[in-house]
Amino acid sequence: MIIRISDAKNHVDQEATIQGWMYNKRGSGKIYFLQLRDGSGLMQAVACEGDTPDSAMKTAGDLQMETSLKVTGKITQHPKHDDVFEMQVTDIEVIHQPAEEYPISKKEHGPDFLLDNRHLWLRSSKQWAIQRVRNTIINATYDYFNQNGFIKIDSPILTPNACEGTTELFEIEYFDEGSAYLSQSGQLYLEAAVMSHGRVFDFGPVFRAEKSKTRRHLTEFWMMDAEMLCDHEENLKIQEELICHIIKKVLDINQKELTILERDIEPLRKIKAPFIRKTHAEVVEELRGMGSDIQPDHDLGGDDETILTQKYDQPIFVEKYPAEVKAFYMKRDPKDDSRALCADLLAPEGYGEIIGGSQREDDYDVLMARIKEHKLDPKVFEWYLDLRKYGSMPHSGFGYGLERITGWICGTQHIRETIPFPRMINRIKP
Amino acid sequence: MIIRISDAKNHVDQEATIQGWMYNKRGSGKIYFLQLRDGSGLMQAVACEGDTPDSAMKTAGDLQMETSLKVTGKITQHPKHDDVFEMQVTDIEVIHQPAEEYPISKKEHGPDFLLDNRHLWLRSSKQWAIQRVRNTIINATYDYFNQNGFIKIDSPILTPNACEGTTELFEIEYFDEGSAYLSQSGQLYLEAAVMSHGRVFDFGPVFRAEKSKTRRHLTEFWMMDAEMLCDHEENLKIQEELICHIIKKVLDINQKELTILERDIEPLRKIKAPFIRKTHAEVVEELRGMGSDIQPDHDLGGDDETILTQKYDQPIFVEKYPAEVKAFYMKRDPKDDSRALCADLLAPEGYGEIIGGSQREDDYDVLMARIKEHKLDPKVFEWYLDLRKYGSMPHSGFGYGLERITGWICGTQHIRETIPFPRMINRIKP
Repeated sequence: MIIRISDAKNHVDQEATIQGWMYNKRGSGKIYFLQLRDGSGLMQAVACEGDTPDSAMKTAGDLQMETSLKVTGKITQHPKHDDVFEMQVTDIEVIHQPAEEYPISKKEHGPDFLLDNRHLWLRSSKQWAIQRVRNTIINATYDYFNQNGFIKIDSPILTPNACEGTTELFEIEYFDEGSAYLSQSGQLYLEAAVMSHGRVFDFGPVFRAEKSKTRRHLTEFWMMDAEMLCDHEENLKIQEELICHIIKKVLDINQKELTILERDIEPLRKIKAPFIRKTHAEVVEELRGMGSDIQPDHDLGGDDETILTQKYDQPIFVEKYPAEVKAFYMKRDPKDDSRALCADLLAPEGYGEIIGGSQREDDYDVLMARIKEHKLDPKVFEWYLDLRKYGSMPHSGFGYGLERITGWICGTQHIRETIPFPRMINRIKP
Repeated sequence: MIIRISDAKNHVDQEATIQGWMYNKRGSGKIYFLQLRDGSGLMQAVACEGDTPDSAMKTAGDLQMETSLKVTGKITQHPKHDDVFEMQVTDIEVIHQPAEEYPISKKEHGPDFLLDNRHLWLRSSKQWAIQRVRNTIINATYDYFNQNGFIKIDSPILTPNACEGTTELFEIEYFDEGSAYLSQSGQLYLEAAVMSHGRVFDFGPVFRAEKSKTRRHLTEFWMMDAEMLCDHEENLKIQEELICHIIKKVLDINQKELTILERDIEPLRKIKAPFIRKTHAEVVEELRGMGSDIQPDHDLGGDDETILTQKYDQPIFVEKYPAEVKAFYMKRDPKDDSRALCADLLAPEGYGEIIGGSQREDDYDVLMARIKEHKLDPKVFEWYLDLRKYGSMPHSGFGYGLERITGWICGTQHIRETIPFPRMINRIKP
């Protein structure tokens, strides 16, 4: 019977077959330790002269890295570790033996080589582990939203107009309709849907034709946007709950993956709501005290986020940015009209921004004035203004970057490893 | 206390507040029946002279369609229907009264008008219901895959090469890398990931720059692709399980929505695995008997699918198409090399194709020969061929179109209503 490695615990002392790949091999002649992978996990299979038939010993000797195969034997529990299982090999059937040596060896490879071979690199245990954690984050997000009455509304990728200049937008020609652009965010569309469903989210790819080459930037990445009939305060509360739910699920489900990634999980265990809340003004002062030259009317730079979040062991909400550095649709702080009723959430350990959110301007006249102040074309926003014309309602929302959250939780330096097939300014393949 | 309408059952005989919109109003002067919506459902609130204070009666009289408001009163159970709740109004607070009449009235509107106002049309009860069913289908899909050990692998949208001609592809300029194209399917990428994870799926937008104007076509739509280490037989079994799981979840969760949509649910209740299985050759014969002029070496046309699926009350797998009408990557039937080891799944009641799938060619030399037969550039498929070079493994997969499944389950004629913001050849707005 073919079983999955993740299911080995239910087959102890039984004979079973693993179908997968030879990931690594040690030993020679009298004993081989074969590390097998089948997609669900890694397991050691031991082929040993005397116990394992000669023909299987010979096959074991010939196995190469990434040979696909079926290995049959008895499942045993590791004498010292409760959750580690091994196989005592009685038979090996080779499905496909590579004719050429597998290009990704145990030695160090440069990032360009690995990215050129991303279709194979995905098989490496760290890359496998990152995708498993990413999967848990995705599922935890769906869980949370379902349990809390959110409806998934898929906002469109092909959008007719550039909201704020076209320099960071990918452009396509759309039949006879002229230019269309790839969406940078589904938020505006979710604001239409929230007036139908009350609580909505989307979760899909977004695009930035940005010429940034940093460890935090991709040209195509996955974004989750949520929109609710609520104010700024409740918006932050929902974000806290969601992030705590995600962390809890990863710690529950992905202990093995975090071990493979050599991720110190203590900082993750500490994450607890309520998160730290600071105003932009407080943060500017604090950063300047730490040596940053940030100005009171500036957005935080990447370095600012790094030094600030290295100082704390909880995520930090930075609230109430100067309105002029934020988008036109944000509602202003009723206590200070120069500030937006917004918050970015920064992850600790130097990771920085993972969420941006705000309460949205819900008054027609005020929004129209903002559109004009930002020198945007009211015609383009006619439908968006309609949402303030027919039964406007206070609403707020936020968006998280999946790759940034995955990078933080996995402890990955560069977010290019957190997406299956990264797209960067100089990388569109494979 | 503000409660959601969906939660009214837990507040019978209590005073509560609904925050939402006035969807419809009957009555005048002495009694008003207000139909309220809050995103979670619809509820009737009754304002009645004598029971409701005069000021609230006056407000009720002034309410317009889509006025946003808070209505307070006692929740009561409908005397005849266990699952219907009403509110006896004691207070109405208007949040925002539209200054202009809401453009979508109860009268019939043409599709162009409704699509131009899609941002508002989404609030109509049928459109609301369709998105709720779509949401259940999405969730049921995630459920099923999680329970069965699948990992979500997000395949890229920006892809470097056109697989089979560029006529149906949207093209963008990608920095200095030349042209890139919007993905039509993540399948090839999933085939890389399945060699890492064993069972994978993706679920995201795909694009066809097709000039088709049919009720089954959109230029941007959501596709779910799954890929597993399994053969053709198991591939069909997984599809059956998934579809049955989806139908069951919708019937469990969305009774009210299906009632709003006037969907006869008996045909859905009947759906049961195993589905009908017919070979392409059998179907051609059957269709010709029904008056179709389909040729033995042709793909099924839309009309063929309609008449065939009107005849049966179960979904139909049409297997083993002539290889030449199918994609190069499909494995051939070992019993007949002119046939592909594939199946399309057609939904009953005239709906037609909802899934396409196949076992994939896993032999390097055979795949290379197919690529050349199809006059494709082997250079473009180098990475894809690599998957057959290093530990190849038998694998199969399938893809479903979310809008087509939603259309079938909701009983919607045109799939443009099944996606929040439809994109068609002449429609990129709002």
